[in-house]
Amino acid sequence: MTATQIKVAIVGVTGYAGMELLRLLHAHPYVQVVSVHQTTATQETLDQTFPHLQSLYKITPTPVDPVHIMQNADLVFFATSSGVTKTLAAPFIAQHFPVIDLSGDFRLNAKDYAQWYHQPAAPQALLDQASYSLADFYTNDKSYIANPGCYATATLLALAPLAQAQLLDADSIVIDAKSGLSGAGKSLTTASHFITVNENMMMYKPNQHQHLPEIMQQLQRWQPSLAHIQFTTSLLPINRGIFVSAYVKLKQPLTPKAIDALYHQTYADKPFVRLMPLDTFPDIKQVVGTNFTDIGLTYNPITHYLTIVSVIDNMIKGAAGQAIQNMNHLYHFEETTGLNLIAQYA
Amino acid sequence: MTATQIKVAIVGVTGYAGMELLRLLHAHPYVQVVSVHQTTATQETLDQTFPHLQSLYKITPTPVDPVHIMQNADLVFFATSSGVTKTLAAPFIAQHFPVIDLSGDFRLNAKDYAQWYHQPAAPQALLDQASYSLADFYTNDKSYIANPGCYATATLLALAPLAQAQLLDADSIVIDAKSGLSGAGKSLTTASHFITVNENMMMYKPNQHQHLPEIMQQLQRWQPSLAHIQFTTSLLPINRGIFVSAYVKLKQPLTPKAIDALYHQTYADKPFVRLMPLDTFPDIKQVVGTNFTDIGLTYNPITHYLTIVSVIDNMIKGAAGQAIQNMNHLYHFEETTGLNLIAQYA
Amino acid sequence: MTATQIKVAIVGVTGYAGMELLRLLHAHPYVQVVSVHQTTATQETLDQTFPHLQSLYKITPTPVDPVHIMQNADLVFFATSSGVTKTLAAPFIAQHFPVIDLSGDFRLNAKDYAQWYHQPAAPQALLDQASYSLADFYTNDKSYIANPGCYATATLLALAPLAQAQLLDADSIVIDAKSGLSGAGKSLTTASHFITVNENMMMYKPNQHQHLPEIMQQLQRWQPSLAHIQFTTSLLPINRGIFVSAYVKLKQPLTPKAIDALYHQTYADKPFVRLMPLDTFPDIKQVVGTNFTDIGLTYNPITHYLTIVSVIDNMIKGAAGQAIQNMNHLYHFEETTGLNLIAQYA
Amino acid sequence: MTATQIKVAIVGVTGYAGMELLRLLHAHPYVQVVSVHQTTATQETLDQTFPHLQSLYKITPTPVDPVHIMQNADLVFFATSSGVTKTLAAPFIAQHFPVIDLSGDFRLNAKDYAQWYHQPAAPQALLDQASYSLADFYTNDKSYIANPGCYATATLLALAPLAQAQLLDADSIVIDAKSGLSGAGKSLTTASHFITVNENMMMYKPNQHQHLPEIMQQLQRWQPSLAHIQFTTSLLPINRGIFVSAYVKLKQPLTPKAIDALYHQTYADKPFVRLMPLDTFPDIKQVVGTNFTDIGLTYNPITHYLTIVSVIDNMIKGAAGQAIQNMNHLYHFEETTGLNLIAQYA
Repeated sequence: MTATQIKVAIVGVTGYAGMELLRLLHAHPYVQVVSVHQTTATQETLDQTFPHLQSLYKITPTPVDPVHIMQNADLVFFATSSGVTKTLAAPFIAQHFPVIDLSGDFRLNAKDYAQWYHQPAAPQALLDQASYSLADFYTNDKSYIANPGCYATATLLALAPLAQAQLLDADSIVIDAKSGLSGAGKSLTTASHFITVNENMMMYKPNQHQHLPEIMQQLQRWQPSLAHIQFTTSLLPINRGIFVSAYVKLKQPLTPKAIDALYHQTYADKPFVRLMPLDTFPDIKQVVGTNFTDIGLTYNPITHYLTIVSVIDNMIKGAAGQAIQNMNHLYHFEETTGLNLIAQYA
Repeated sequence: MTATQIKVAIVGVTGYAGMELLRLLHAHPYVQVVSVHQTTATQETLDQTFPHLQSLYKITPTPVDPVHIMQNADLVFFATSSGVTKTLAAPFIAQHFPVIDLSGDFRLNAKDYAQWYHQPAAPQALLDQASYSLADFYTNDKSYIANPGCYATATLLALAPLAQAQLLDADSIVIDAKSGLSGAGKSLTTASHFITVNENMMMYKPNQHQHLPEIMQQLQRWQPSLAHIQFTTSLLPINRGIFVSAYVKLKQPLTPKAIDALYHQTYADKPFVRLMPLDTFPDIKQVVGTNFTDIGLTYNPITHYLTIVSVIDNMIKGAAGQAIQNMNHLYHFEETTGLNLIAQYA
Repeated sequence: MTATQIKVAIVGVTGYAGMELLRLLHAHPYVQVVSVHQTTATQETLDQTFPHLQSLYKITPTPVDPVHIMQNADLVFFATSSGVTKTLAAPFIAQHFPVIDLSGDFRLNAKDYAQWYHQPAAPQALLDQASYSLADFYTNDKSYIANPGCYATATLLALAPLAQAQLLDADSIVIDAKSGLSGAGKSLTTASHFITVNENMMMYKPNQHQHLPEIMQQLQRWQPSLAHIQFTTSLLPINRGIFVSAYVKLKQPLTPKAIDALYHQTYADKPFVRLMPLDTFPDIKQVVGTNFTDIGLTYNPITHYLTIVSVIDNMIKGAAGQAIQNMNHLYHFEETTGLNLIAQYA
Repeated sequence: MTATQIKVAIVGVTGYAGMELLRLLHAHPYVQVVSVHQTTATQETLDQTFPHLQSLYKITPTPVDPVHIMQNADLVFFATSSGVTKTLAAPFIAQHFPVIDLSGDFRLNAKDYAQWYHQPAAPQALLDQASYSLADFYTNDKSYIANPGCYATATLLALAPLAQAQLLDADSIVIDAKSGLSGAGKSLTTASHFITVNENMMMYKPNQHQHLPEIMQQLQRWQPSLAHIQFTTSLLPINRGIFVSAYVKLKQPLTPKAIDALYHQTYADKPFVRLMPLDTFPDIKQVVGTNFTDIGLTYNPITHYLTIVSVIDNMIKGAAGQAIQNMNHLYHFEETTGLNLIAQYA
């Protein structure tokens, strides 16, 4: 417990991911939040604006002043929207200042970004300095960490053992991913109105979700021959949680036990990935409030499909928690520091 | 409006499906409910036991007396549990008395029933007199109608146009079906406790749901070569509704427009099947409270998967509403009689 | 059943109350909806805009043209917002054309309206021609019916027997009223965002809800000496339903049986008010989807408080259903016509 | 961080409150859970039975062995049901071993217990050694702490400043308390079935909830003349949270500012009670997941009613969190140790 205390700034603190960062970092023993930032000016302290923060955060968000931030903090988190971050982050990248970016702006190459985000990418020179970092397989050596998307995290962890073993049969991969509403953010739309969401389920962006290219990019790093996957996303009437149902066939036959063993081998030393007993599945609630990814699998000998279910808390493992896990790696803190969280049972 | 009034009895009136039958038949202009039945004795009228029926149903449920029912009614609905119905229904079958059975007891051949329901099937002589009747494709000529299961209905209507055209590629079919909690019935289990269900989603009976064999049986009537499908079921934290995501490849290439045209052709004269514009999807709420099946589809030119979404109200189209639709056919009433229902917008 | 068919127009059809009117009138045997109207121009038919109406309403909303409406319809419903209706309705009032107004614009005298709605009231000459009509106590003789508010309906029916008998002790009356989210309308606000509402409850407008003056106005018609009541409103994380908990003391002692008898006497001939057995309470679900008001009461001999619970469906009894009940009265249809609805059990 | 580490045992670990204790104590720096206990025998470790505890608690619950527990632990928590605890706890009381009891068995005098719990109380000699301890007003000097009930905690903190100042007018106090479903426990009843609870609200045990006598007992310690209050309880369709709406009149007139000042004075040094700005109210979500009680108030000059809203997390402040707060007092740990929790914003 002799780790250095570090100072961090949070840009975009008033969004869902920013708020979750603030909440989790409050319990991190080696981190001090020295400044918080938002784009719109305010005179109010956070605890005046947000009743749940009353008595806790008397800090006032200020506009983003890169020089000031770099002088006063050791690291900055960007919890800003995709499209906004790429501009705000540029001065930090120029100085090689440590950044953990929860937006999608530095996850893809320029071509994919333009195609999937429908806008120009950051300049190539900036993109080159960013590293996409799925925290459980952290191998980063750059100061700019592009934190993965929520759907991407749950999907990649469901498939990693198979992709790394070159076992995925591209023609068979169907990912049916569902998310709670916090994944859709704070914006006020008909799709986020209570009456629309409650007692309902809807599919959106079929074949067009912007997390698909980052999934493909990472899968292909593991299994270069993998050409494509079928990926769809739906919204559940719950606040938090992602439930990924993955259906895949393998390029060569393996017994269920062998598949199970492969998963255990891959995740043996990953404290945040937990495997259910073979033929049983996790539910969302067992991970909500935690940084865990829980995975279950079963093999169907008739169809030869392997069904894999992975669940995460989209705001923690899918955003703020993974960002802290990446930060822990960057500063060589114990990986689980500040993330020893247990799901509520009731 | 010159149709004959018919008299019906409902066995298993106090279950969810029985109650829904009672509710819907209340608005059916040609039907009079003359008796209701349950297995446990009671002295209370329905409106004493069920506050929502106060002032509406002063009728007292009685035990099942086949002779009495056949003397006083023209038709009997069985809304009893699978396993119970096969015994209770025997005397009615023996007399060729009209039965509409919402349970699973007469949907399968004896071998499949024993395998999927883990108990002996009804005698073959009885099974022979029952007809599985998906109401939108009604071709029944028997007096015993086995009303389809809820998951089966949504899945079959999603795939019917393709199966009937011999287009389904069996090796590619993945069905990810989700249901609201009413589908799990009234029994008190940890899985139906509010704290378990709310803010959660869970997969259950993977590859083992008893609706799978009835889906296969009907699909093979349409496309005999079809060997198998991958079928999984999950529970959503909502009261009502089924959302089926079907992913399929076709045995021969068709343009999206041609696929869309095929669906329109198949369902042109089906008042209870509605198609969304190509590349858009229905949500659950647009059918809850109705007998509609709404279907949307999109084609992915990269993976060659066709994504089909179908939604139904599991208690209406998936149970009581379809039973009434089957009854309307049997008595040559207008198919939509008593089923002109509109979903709530708010 | 030889009633004349009437033709109606709906202004504000795309709001929650307008949609509910359309849904309920669809099942009304004596009504034909001949035109629907909204303030913003559109080329789409209702069933193009609203998927749940697909195949049902190929009618296109048009702007409000009073002359045209009065030529083609027998009656117009206003389901427009408070503040908007008072202007739109003026030409109809001038012609003594029958109007049923679901907004708050003609419920109050000019002074109260200005105070509680924070804007000028309609001219006194127009207000004079409107009649506030709580449908279960219908005594209307004017062509302009101001349909009561949802909270007002549930509260007034909870208190009517006591107020009519001059029994309420003003100094003791506490009304704690809760509503589902549809009561807050379609507008996109942080307060209606799913993440705000779900797994939450909040109190709003304490002592300031605009339904309070219409409650007082009606209570004072019954019990003129009644000076005030304590009235607060909260939002529940559900789509529909109002739950009113009323706590009152009586000006003179009555036994619980006598109070129960008084309620039974008052509501003996009211088909839409149902009383629970003494000392039991209704829940919201037993009335959702219906035009019923269910009421339960219990007396506390220690505190001398009588607890009264009343529940309604805010969109039906609290809006569109009561409007149709008022229409039935106006045209001397059977009061329950088109409103024979049963709550869902599951 | 020089506090002594203490060892604790949890009896009733598998219930909701026991699980919450386990979760919260996991993050307490000075506590080690050395044994967990349940009444039914098991061979499974906690993390085999409860998937959310996988990889976290490899401890196996054992039956309650008082001698063994007293030898190995410094303190025992009873999270067992009311009625069960009084027997299990007896040996510990006999040895003056420290106990924190979350059940209702030692909160009342023998006469009140028998009346409200419908069973005989623990022997008077045992009751004499227990102390009812509302943690925010902790003055305990006994080794057996009876931790307050959830409704009682929220109600008492709403009224404490007024009761301590002898200001409550007994004839006017109306408490309308609502709770999420976790307050009803794990038992499988129709009332806890998802279909019953979801999209619903119901009142239960009017004037008969067993938390009423403990509220009266504590209020009368503060304001001895207080004779009674009107207290009702309802269930909300949410997992967690209590929302108390309290309506009271004062025995002598105070300005709203003076009332507000009184509350601020009472709670100035209470880290777990937060006051909203005058005339604003807390919602449930701002305290769920925390040990806070948030309180808002507004005065109605017309009715002279003061409306007070208090909200808590029923599983934390209303059970496990307050138990830990009491433990912190007992061992002279900083009051907030292990309880520095922030509510989720999304």
